[in-house]
Amino acid sequence: MLILTDEEKAIANAIQQLSNQAGSHSPSIFAIAEELPQLEIKIDACFLSNPYATDLVLDDFTKQLIHTNKIKKVLEYYPSQNQVIANVLSPCLNVPAKNIFIGNGATEIIQAVIHNFTTRKIIVNIPTFSPYYEFVKKGVKVVLNELNKDEHFEINIENYIQLVEKEKPDTIVLINPNNPSAGYITLADIKFLLNQLRRVDNIIIDESFIHFAYEDEEYEIKSAITMTEEFRNLIIVKSMTKDFGIAGIRAGYAVMDEEKIRHLLRYGYLWNVSGLAEYFFRLYAQDEFQSEYEKARIRYIQEAKHFFSELSAIEGLKVYPSMANFVLVELTNGATSYDFVSKLLIKYGIYFRDGSDKIGLDGEFARIASRTKDENEIILDAIKEVLQIVPEQLVMKKYLYGKQFYA
Amino acid sequence: MLILTDEEKAIANAIQQLSNQAGSHSPSIFAIAEELPQLEIKIDACFLSNPYATDLVLDDFTKQLIHTNKIKKVLEYYPSQNQVIANVLSPCLNVPAKNIFIGNGATEIIQAVIHNFTTRKIIVNIPTFSPYYEFVKKGVKVVLNELNKDEHFEINIENYIQLVEKEKPDTIVLINPNNPSAGYITLADIKFLLNQLRRVDNIIIDESFIHFAYEDEEYEIKSAITMTEEFRNLIIVKSMTKDFGIAGIRAGYAVMDEEKIRHLLRYGYLWNVSGLAEYFFRLYAQDEFQSEYEKARIRYIQEAKHFFSELSAIEGLKVYPSMANFVLVELTNGATSYDFVSKLLIKYGIYFRDGSDKIGLDGEFARIASRTKDENEIILDAIKEVLQIVPEQLVMKKYLYGKQFYA
Repeated sequence: MLILTDEEKAIANAIQQLSNQAGSHSPSIFAIAEELPQLEIKIDACFLSNPYATDLVLDDFTKQLIHTNKIKKVLEYYPSQNQVIANVLSPCLNVPAKNIFIGNGATEIIQAVIHNFTTRKIIVNIPTFSPYYEFVKKGVKVVLNELNKDEHFEINIENYIQLVEKEKPDTIVLINPNNPSAGYITLADIKFLLNQLRRVDNIIIDESFIHFAYEDEEYEIKSAITMTEEFRNLIIVKSMTKDFGIAGIRAGYAVMDEEKIRHLLRYGYLWNVSGLAEYFFRLYAQDEFQSEYEKARIRYIQEAKHFFSELSAIEGLKVYPSMANFVLVELTNGATSYDFVSKLLIKYGIYFRDGSDKIGLDGEFARIASRTKDENEIILDAIKEVLQIVPEQLVMKKYLYGKQFYA
Repeated sequence: MLILTDEEKAIANAIQQLSNQAGSHSPSIFAIAEELPQLEIKIDACFLSNPYATDLVLDDFTKQLIHTNKIKKVLEYYPSQNQVIANVLSPCLNVPAKNIFIGNGATEIIQAVIHNFTTRKIIVNIPTFSPYYEFVKKGVKVVLNELNKDEHFEINIENYIQLVEKEKPDTIVLINPNNPSAGYITLADIKFLLNQLRRVDNIIIDESFIHFAYEDEEYEIKSAITMTEEFRNLIIVKSMTKDFGIAGIRAGYAVMDEEKIRHLLRYGYLWNVSGLAEYFFRLYAQDEFQSEYEKARIRYIQEAKHFFSELSAIEGLKVYPSMANFVLVELTNGATSYDFVSKLLIKYGIYFRDGSDKIGLDGEFARIASRTKDENEIILDAIKEVLQIVPEQLVMKKYLYGKQFYA
């Protein structure tokens, strides 16, 4: 049985209090370090990012900004305005600049879209990323469409279209792949949906995890981004945090009808991204960076696939199908997700997302991100120890004598 | 006479086009560098910041983040949420955390306040920082209160109170010191105003330049920040860009009634500042930094005072009284501000803000920021050359043989 010691219980309780302060999100590692200095996060598998891409960005950051001392200008001076940066991104996204809105992270874009364009009713599939219903303003009706556990939380396209036709919302949201359930809608199905739902004013497709999805072994990105010209109600939301692991930079973009962007920029969003975000977007637009990133992306997908299959083999865990860089796992041996997540954090320094506060997740769920190959191995061993499938001390040995996997 | 050569005219025209794209703001130095690589900005006196404080922040940034490699965490991980950072600032602002809202630059705060709390009518004094009327949503009436050139664009408190009582707005805005006119309202007058105007729902006082104002030779900061408890309609807006010269980091805060902050955070502003902004706020809260900054602040004020008095002595320039780190100057010898600003930028690499697109500024105005002591000297000589008070080549000599004033 998975049992917390009294000391672990006390720490778990303190973490819980921090989490409560953070609303429906995990507390930042800075907040944890400040409040719980005795806790050392060695592997952050709560953070849904590609660590190889982070290394790539940080290498370029060091070479191009630190070694040249250009960092001074980036920190000191005003960044460029929204449409100047949209111009930089336009060629690599293959979308006209007038259809690109640059955001201070995807959350700013979600807030902007929902506050400005959603006036009556929104349908949100649950479980989901909570801002999609939390940010909705007073007077707007939220319809929560519960995805079915028995259908692996995947969307049934026909039922969904029927629901939309019945409810007649002005806004619908599809996260593809979904967070936290990692389910995926194929590009063909997205196109079918868009064709059927032309009367909905705002169809938000959040593609923050699309770089990790694939439809064949070519691992090509299947984005709906170029469809905004055909479907003027389509709004693609894109975080850069997941692909590149740069949550601290706060960078995202959206692709949508130019009228909507004109409206947003008419009433605000002046200097809404930092100099570092501008630097990142300029880096992202470089061919050389793109080709290096593509290698890091495919390597990471392949390692994640392997990791998820190893996780699936662990007794006591049910692993849901994933097309993202994380999996939703359900504990099937009687352990609670709270104890499971707490034990892994406190004893092993491995941080997962406890699913117990997610609306639409009934049961004992945790969300586990794929990290580097070495980190994934340690995660697998630690889970096996915690679930008492293997004897203890294996993980501690890896930390002590293993490769230098965590700088 | 101030005459542009044909080549200068062509460049001035290209700059004008960039400016038009930037709306009512100056184009960023990154946008200028990209579009007009032949133009080298050597002294940015358009940028209203204390360069000594920038050096201070950059030194700490280099020591604490780059040399320790903590920068990786700051860029990679999610920053803390709004109220966690408010907690960090609370002791040094001497304001409870529940009254502090952290913003992605002051402009995000202005947008947040005006979009959420201004529903009927707003009074804005002009000339002003344009977002205060530009961001106002459809249906809200904007009353522009034109400050009088003959009164040096300073507010006449009694007339202003009468106007507010007549117009009955739900929101009024006072920038103190004002931008671009640099006029100042004493703390005693602010208190008098607040007492008289208790019925206005939102009294926005933008104190972004308050660190440069003074009421005696002690140079003590006279902020109204602690009055938000007594006057629950008071909203203090504070940019960090001016005091610290870190526009690229995007950091600001507001102090206001806790109900208003709860409302804002209930509907958004999740992870709205970057990891670097969080780092900056944590640095700002350190006693040692505060005491170093205080020296840099007073040094800069004293040098600015000297600079403004030297400017006032130049024939052909009328310099308006200033309590900020910049002055509004009017050209009185027949030169247009367009030619004046263009010549200084193209020939000398000195960047001023042309006032010709500012509503409420009739005449030939430019706004000139105080920079370092050495830079100010070059600015003074260049202006004298341009206005043909001294023979040419003095400035070029300074650039070539002078101190290493521009890193």
